[in-house]
Amino acid sequence: MTPPPTGPPVDLRSDTVTRPDARMREAMARAEVGDDVLDGDPTMRALEEEVAGLLGTEGALWVPSGSMGNLIALCVHLDRGDRFLAPDRAHILDHEVGTAAWLAGGMPRALPWTAGPGAISPADITRVVGRGGPYFALRDRLLCLENTHNAAGGTVTTPPEHRRLTDAAHAAGLLVHLDGARLWNAAVALGVTPAELAEGADTVQVCLSKGLGAPVGSVVAGDRAFVEEARRVRKMLGGGVRQGGVLAAAGLVALERVDRLAEDHDHARLLAAGLADRGWRTGVPRTNILVLPVDDPQRTVSVLAERGVLTVPTDTGVRMITHCDVSRADILRAVESFPPPG
Amino acid sequence: MTPPPTGPPVDLRSDTVTRPDARMREAMARAEVGDDVLDGDPTMRALEEEVAGLLGTEGALWVPSGSMGNLIALCVHLDRGDRFLAPDRAHILDHEVGTAAWLAGGMPRALPWTAGPGAISPADITRVVGRGGPYFALRDRLLCLENTHNAAGGTVTTPPEHRRLTDAAHAAGLLVHLDGARLWNAAVALGVTPAELAEGADTVQVCLSKGLGAPVGSVVAGDRAFVEEARRVRKMLGGGVRQGGVLAAAGLVALERVDRLAEDHDHARLLAAGLADRGWRTGVPRTNILVLPVDDPQRTVSVLAERGVLTVPTDTGVRMITHCDVSRADILRAVESFPPPG
Amino acid sequence: MTPPPTGPPVDLRSDTVTRPDARMREAMARAEVGDDVLDGDPTMRALEEEVAGLLGTEGALWVPSGSMGNLIALCVHLDRGDRFLAPDRAHILDHEVGTAAWLAGGMPRALPWTAGPGAISPADITRVVGRGGPYFALRDRLLCLENTHNAAGGTVTTPPEHRRLTDAAHAAGLLVHLDGARLWNAAVALGVTPAELAEGADTVQVCLSKGLGAPVGSVVAGDRAFVEEARRVRKMLGGGVRQGGVLAAAGLVALERVDRLAEDHDHARLLAAGLADRGWRTGVPRTNILVLPVDDPQRTVSVLAERGVLTVPTDTGVRMITHCDVSRADILRAVESFPPPG
Amino acid sequence: MTPPPTGPPVDLRSDTVTRPDARMREAMARAEVGDDVLDGDPTMRALEEEVAGLLGTEGALWVPSGSMGNLIALCVHLDRGDRFLAPDRAHILDHEVGTAAWLAGGMPRALPWTAGPGAISPADITRVVGRGGPYFALRDRLLCLENTHNAAGGTVTTPPEHRRLTDAAHAAGLLVHLDGARLWNAAVALGVTPAELAEGADTVQVCLSKGLGAPVGSVVAGDRAFVEEARRVRKMLGGGVRQGGVLAAAGLVALERVDRLAEDHDHARLLAAGLADRGWRTGVPRTNILVLPVDDPQRTVSVLAERGVLTVPTDTGVRMITHCDVSRADILRAVESFPPPG
Repeated sequence: MTPPPTGPPVDLRSDTVTRPDARMREAMARAEVGDDVLDGDPTMRALEEEVAGLLGTEGALWVPSGSMGNLIALCVHLDRGDRFLAPDRAHILDHEVGTAAWLAGGMPRALPWTAGPGAISPADITRVVGRGGPYFALRDRLLCLENTHNAAGGTVTTPPEHRRLTDAAHAAGLLVHLDGARLWNAAVALGVTPAELAEGADTVQVCLSKGLGAPVGSVVAGDRAFVEEARRVRKMLGGGVRQGGVLAAAGLVALERVDRLAEDHDHARLLAAGLADRGWRTGVPRTNILVLPVDDPQRTVSVLAERGVLTVPTDTGVRMITHCDVSRADILRAVESFPPPG
Repeated sequence: MTPPPTGPPVDLRSDTVTRPDARMREAMARAEVGDDVLDGDPTMRALEEEVAGLLGTEGALWVPSGSMGNLIALCVHLDRGDRFLAPDRAHILDHEVGTAAWLAGGMPRALPWTAGPGAISPADITRVVGRGGPYFALRDRLLCLENTHNAAGGTVTTPPEHRRLTDAAHAAGLLVHLDGARLWNAAVALGVTPAELAEGADTVQVCLSKGLGAPVGSVVAGDRAFVEEARRVRKMLGGGVRQGGVLAAAGLVALERVDRLAEDHDHARLLAAGLADRGWRTGVPRTNILVLPVDDPQRTVSVLAERGVLTVPTDTGVRMITHCDVSRADILRAVESFPPPG
Repeated sequence: MTPPPTGPPVDLRSDTVTRPDARMREAMARAEVGDDVLDGDPTMRALEEEVAGLLGTEGALWVPSGSMGNLIALCVHLDRGDRFLAPDRAHILDHEVGTAAWLAGGMPRALPWTAGPGAISPADITRVVGRGGPYFALRDRLLCLENTHNAAGGTVTTPPEHRRLTDAAHAAGLLVHLDGARLWNAAVALGVTPAELAEGADTVQVCLSKGLGAPVGSVVAGDRAFVEEARRVRKMLGGGVRQGGVLAAAGLVALERVDRLAEDHDHARLLAAGLADRGWRTGVPRTNILVLPVDDPQRTVSVLAERGVLTVPTDTGVRMITHCDVSRADILRAVESFPPPG
Repeated sequence: MTPPPTGPPVDLRSDTVTRPDARMREAMARAEVGDDVLDGDPTMRALEEEVAGLLGTEGALWVPSGSMGNLIALCVHLDRGDRFLAPDRAHILDHEVGTAAWLAGGMPRALPWTAGPGAISPADITRVVGRGGPYFALRDRLLCLENTHNAAGGTVTTPPEHRRLTDAAHAAGLLVHLDGARLWNAAVALGVTPAELAEGADTVQVCLSKGLGAPVGSVVAGDRAFVEEARRVRKMLGGGVRQGGVLAAAGLVALERVDRLAEDHDHARLLAAGLADRGWRTGVPRTNILVLPVDDPQRTVSVLAERGVLTVPTDTGVRMITHCDVSRADILRAVESFPPPG
């Protein structure tokens, strides 16, 4: 019989629950600030330059959330009614509350996973774009990629795969936006730089508030013209903030911690191995996300919650995400808390 | 060797090319009219009542095009960012220029054909709607059906199948809009009334300008509250017209011709049989659309055009639609004009 | 005491109530047609070329209503959130159901009438555009003029006044759209060509269904790039029609009747003179619209309606519009039906 | 001759330039936090309850900016194409980049200042709403007030004036949103509570980042149903943040400082008096904003900037805003730096 939970729950719902630590808080308290809407906040500028450097783009812009970063990119890239493509179950399709349609006026087309979980191939792009002559009046404008692909289980796209997709998109006349909410995880898992994973994308969004632990904030990056227009759209959406340096300071500390994501990936594999030992059928996670197929997701999530392990149901399973506020002991406790399969 | 084309081309591109005949033109010339934006045009009223009667709805509203009819339904049913479901490759997804997103602010989700060409099952609806708890913030609001399904090759949905889908949608909290641009064809093919095919749908759009031959116009139908709001949205879109009775008169004549669609269906089957005789692999069309799979759609379309047979390329084949301006002799000429397969 | 009404009412509500006459109906019945969405309707083409010629523009596009013509121009000219200027109480501000905001995403700024009823001056434009440096992030993009200005009482703008405004707008970096729903009336009243009144505007909308008597239709005109994009937006709005030649044929007949608008203007002056004789304070109408200031517009409209004279209330008065279905005798009857002032 | 500037510039451009002080930073560093998108951040909850209490509303929601607060209220209150009224030159009309139109789909109508600078009267509302019967299809839905009115020079509306306006709006079937970016200033200037100034409004937006000195954040308040829908719209706009408690903690400190705004008002009056002594024609500011009419706003702003005094040009003058980072000595230096009038 599973023991009753002791201590605080093990929170595997998302890496967004990570809390800023003492060093991050101190950086926030000491941050040099200015009015970022009027003439710029120096710590914001430093953060944006740092991220642009990491991604190899001309510029970058802080935004309050990853959803706003993606939304701004769609708004800049799409005119009314333009179509954009994205791999099936991309975050931008299922989890951003339809703003792609409402705000960006963009018509999505989901591409099935023909090249593995969360993965598409160049042929999927060319098959869809501009076929059928003038009888199809839809204007295809953009491909949205996601690396890692959250709903597919934190799967990664390698630099060569990524470049084949961006090349195919550009050849078909599309722009490419990369939703890199967890691009840092992909980079660490693959042993490459974020810039190698961003190469070929016209714009990129990365989050500071997931595995990296900053309390608030993402960054959207691209060339200078994009950043200028993105700044205008950010203001339109009400996402311009004043003394944002307090948040940017936390972001700068967060960026020093990319390497520690390896530990989260180890923990995800430990979790998978433990569950496999207990008879669950599970693959080996590439990054910090494990989606375990179960028959009744809602019920399993409830059982685990009673035992002090917080998880999230999906269509077909239970999603667990490891992060810096989850220890090796927590993982072992999560494994023990699982009911037997079947 | 194929003989050079003689006479005017055989136009199989669409049943939208049909021209009003003498009787229809005379009806237009004699139509009683009024200002339909101010206090109503009597011929418009007569047409709208006639269609509402045929579909079994409380009311109906004339619109200049089927696209506007569908768009108005989406605008009335959807709030900003709401999601709607539709069978993959529905006209509303691929052929209406992204206005579902731009104007209605609706986020589409295409459902794969799990129940035959163009067909979905009740389980496809329940699998998608509202799964995953509050973590998925998308609000599902509407199911759009299409009968006949154009891109699938004019396939039909029977009344029992239709009711199973509308029941599943309503049970899941969705409204149902039926794109019935060719609902008349489905009714004739199945030997049922249009009302039997509309039952269970909250709103329906039917076209007067395709197989029925009216020069301009469609009708969108539903309950009184819907029609009132639809009238307002029509005005917003600039679709309110003044002495529209001249067009409604043509529509009333068109409605007398539903039964003659059987001839178009015969012609489509004749076309398929002729092509099968010449070695092409082709199914038996249910209505007036034949999509013939070919290796190089654009090229085949060009070859046929040189021989005086006009068709439309799709992703994977050549689409041909029969209509009242195409005779049995035209069909035979089209068959002869086809190059051999492979 | 006023005699009870005899015969049909005198309908002065709008010149939109005009009905097509026998010649127009015959033209509709004989019109050569094609599929205007697929490869063009020859009568549509003829109409569009005729209007482009009259307005001196490169091209023109038929639309189902004046509202759609204006809306398309706004959609083509404005990006999300762009501001447009228009004289106070312009039709596009008060009578087009907010679609400027909803569909075109445009933020209106009404300019007060500083140069007479319905009229603005170049200084009104420069005072507003781009003042205040970067602190004002609104992007001014468009000036919308209206000639004649309906709500101001059918007032006219002369070619030199019009050019001063378009020059000022262009100098300030704005495009200019001319809502010429009754441009024909302005031309006749001023004894100039429509082209002289359109010169300097980037785009123009003219109606065929008001004083000219066509049952349905307007035309929006501009350079070739505009017309191409306008065609796309028309399709998006559901305003593309198939065998529209039946309507275009009526439009071509309507265009032969521009000169007869002089009679409507005579009738409006006759109406004003008659009312002045009966003690009403009224100016001399320039075209076919008379707005008579009254204390209780709704009540006056009701009293007149009981006597068989149909009019429209405005904020401050009663609006009457003369047209081809109103005779000199009707005007005299309308005058007699008016209650005494005060 | 004016002495060259010494020390840092006197920044009178806006009270948005205020920097968080040591106590505020310490509060941020110690803030208890949670995931505000998943299950709530305790410090966010405390701030929202505090503000709801101060405003007398059922609930409240933190937002990253005042612009987003206003925008969310418009989105919740307006359907596509609905019209809203606001006093001429309201911030929501001129300074929020047209998002009222683009995002909320709302058509603005500016009301002229008939009751003093920035002020309207109940009759202005009733004159505009729903006049003219069904011929005017625009749907009036909302009145937006602004207290203090920024562009009018920080003018205040008293509780009785405010109630007369909200009563007139409700009687006309409108909702009322109050843009209270500087409602604290109005309350201090009038010696009343914020709740007295919010009474009668359906929704209110207040800023923490202007005179109160918080680095980031505003709050939008209303009844429970509004807050629930506002939370959804905030997520759609990308304005939901994770560990926002770090910002809310600063907001809670800011709310303790409302009373100190009296000092800013004293400084504004000192500034006005000093300029009057130097021959400028200037009124007595009611709060912390002084708009000085000058002939060439851009040039005056440039001259002052060279002398180390930062200000903002408006259409007709120079705007100066006092705040906690401006001392009495700074004000005296600003006065001295002004060129002579004329």
